Amino acid sequence: MSGVVVLKTAEAVERTVASWRSRGHSISLVPTMGALHEGHLSLVSIARKRSKRVIVSIFVNPAQFGPDEDFSEYPRTFEEDREKLSRAGAHAIFLPDEHMIYPMGFSTSVLVSGLTESLCGRFRPGHFNGVTTVCAVLFGIVRPDIAVFGRKDAQQLTVIRRMVRDLHMRVQVVSGPVVREPDGLAMSSRNRYLRTEERRQSTALYRGLCKAAELVSDGERNADRIVGRAMEIIDSSPLVMVQYIELVDPFSLKPLLRMKRKGLLAVAASVGETRLIDNIMLGPEGAIEEE
Amino acid sequence: MSGVVVLKTAEAVERTVASWRSRGHSISLVPTMGALHEGHLSLVSIARKRSKRVIVSIFVNPAQFGPDEDFSEYPRTFEEDREKLSRAGAHAIFLPDEHMIYPMGFSTSVLVSGLTESLCGRFRPGHFNGVTTVCAVLFGIVRPDIAVFGRKDAQQLTVIRRMVRDLHMRVQVVSGPVVREPDGLAMSSRNRYLRTEERRQSTALYRGLCKAAELVSDGERNADRIVGRAMEIIDSSPLVMVQYIELVDPFSLKPLLRMKRKGLLAVAASVGETRLIDNIMLGPEGAIEEE
Repeated sequence: MSGVVVLKTAEAVERTVASWRSRGHSISLVPTMGALHEGHLSLVSIARKRSKRVIVSIFVNPAQFGPDEDFSEYPRTFEEDREKLSRAGAHAIFLPDEHMIYPMGFSTSVLVSGLTESLCGRFRPGHFNGVTTVCAVLFGIVRPDIAVFGRKDAQQLTVIRRMVRDLHMRVQVVSGPVVREPDGLAMSSRNRYLRTEERRQSTALYRGLCKAAELVSDGERNADRIVGRAMEIIDSSPLVMVQYIELVDPFSLKPLLRMKRKGLLAVAASVGETRLIDNIMLGPEGAIEEE
Repeated sequence: MSGVVVLKTAEAVERTVASWRSRGHSISLVPTMGALHEGHLSLVSIARKRSKRVIVSIFVNPAQFGPDEDFSEYPRTFEEDREKLSRAGAHAIFLPDEHMIYPMGFSTSVLVSGLTESLCGRFRPGHFNGVTTVCAVLFGIVRPDIAVFGRKDAQQLTVIRRMVRDLHMRVQVVSGPVVREPDGLAMSSRNRYLRTEERRQSTALYRGLCKAAELVSDGERNADRIVGRAMEIIDSSPLVMVQYIELVDPFSLKPLLRMKRKGLLAVAASVGETRLIDNIMLGPEGAIEEE
């Protein structure tokens, strides 16, 4: 019934990918943790435009959750996910279990230093090591031509690009834009955790980012003033507790004192028990979209 | 004149490998730090039997030397190495500089935990992280079907096999036997550091290992007694200062209390300023050779 095949083992993926390759098809991988929303589906759509075959991995990766984080509560909605992926035109789902990715005796980690200690890394120690390690495993199993990641996870994207470059992984990393709810809240699998009033106030994050972009387009270059203005907006929503908000260089993730050619304004906040992140890329004229 | 082509950049390697692939040739990589001896050349010979094309990398990898180790003194003998590789029938040498392997902003490491803290890892903290990282980079650049390593570096071999398995690197790791001087000393690029009397006493390492093997073939199963007998032999050479000598499981590298189906007896010693390692694989009947 469903047009998308579900593969549970590395061997099954390797066989499927080999048969696609033998027909000359290019292959994209969209790594996800499931609980799919329009943001994920937009990545599938990008993947379809870029390659002949699209495989979506769904794996709630324990290694990227801290001990006090929401691994066990993380939403698992496989039947809905499969329906959505089928309609979105994905060709295969890789649905490994934990033992498939981390077999007995698994001992290897892939770390990117320098880019992973700041921003979210400060609040989620070990998180990015879990991300890079699982991506190295997934890339090793699938060997895609292209891997598609969302720009909502801006730091993750920078970290993965660095790993791919440093280790000469032969995969092109492609990014998709942040997809937002009509009121501006960035889509996230975690938004479903939000209570009504939390959900309402969460829009402050994007409103803050947009105000900062407006300041930049008006000529403001001072990072403190840009960040401070965004912070004012967000602070007026008392349920939104900012963890960090920083204007950084998008490649090095180092803080900028002044807005240069490009700056990534990134924010994380806890809203009740839910952790949300968002970001906006800024150019000299304000917000820009950039792959 | 020389039959072996020297490639200095990743791009040159990728081009050469792609042209070999287009002709259907299988490819082996023999990673080395140069200063080649018969041990290395035996790996080239194994590689030639296993694949149509052989590429030998020569890179003295700073990341696997500790701050007090011999990185700057490590012998660099490229002209001799090239001659030897040409005669041995290697097809290409990959001779990158440091910046080629670790370009500006290089930030990624590949670590194998659990296997790298014991034995040599105890005396060379960080060493194996340097080894796994550079191998991940080399495998990424060359994408060989086969990578050939010597069994003299037994722990390294175990660590690399684990990395390859965990990250689904599509390379078959093949090992070659320890090649010895006529008096039993394991060949090593560092043997040239030894003064005359040090060189003479260094044979104690292999004599100790052989005595242990003899005990096992006589039915001894107790690890302390097996190791103790080897230690006695080695201790009778006062210039040979043992760092460790341990009987371990060859897969987990965990110490064995009793000799089982298989045990790796591994030793490291300093002899003057020179650090030497050696090992012997033991089965129930004594020494065994095993790939």
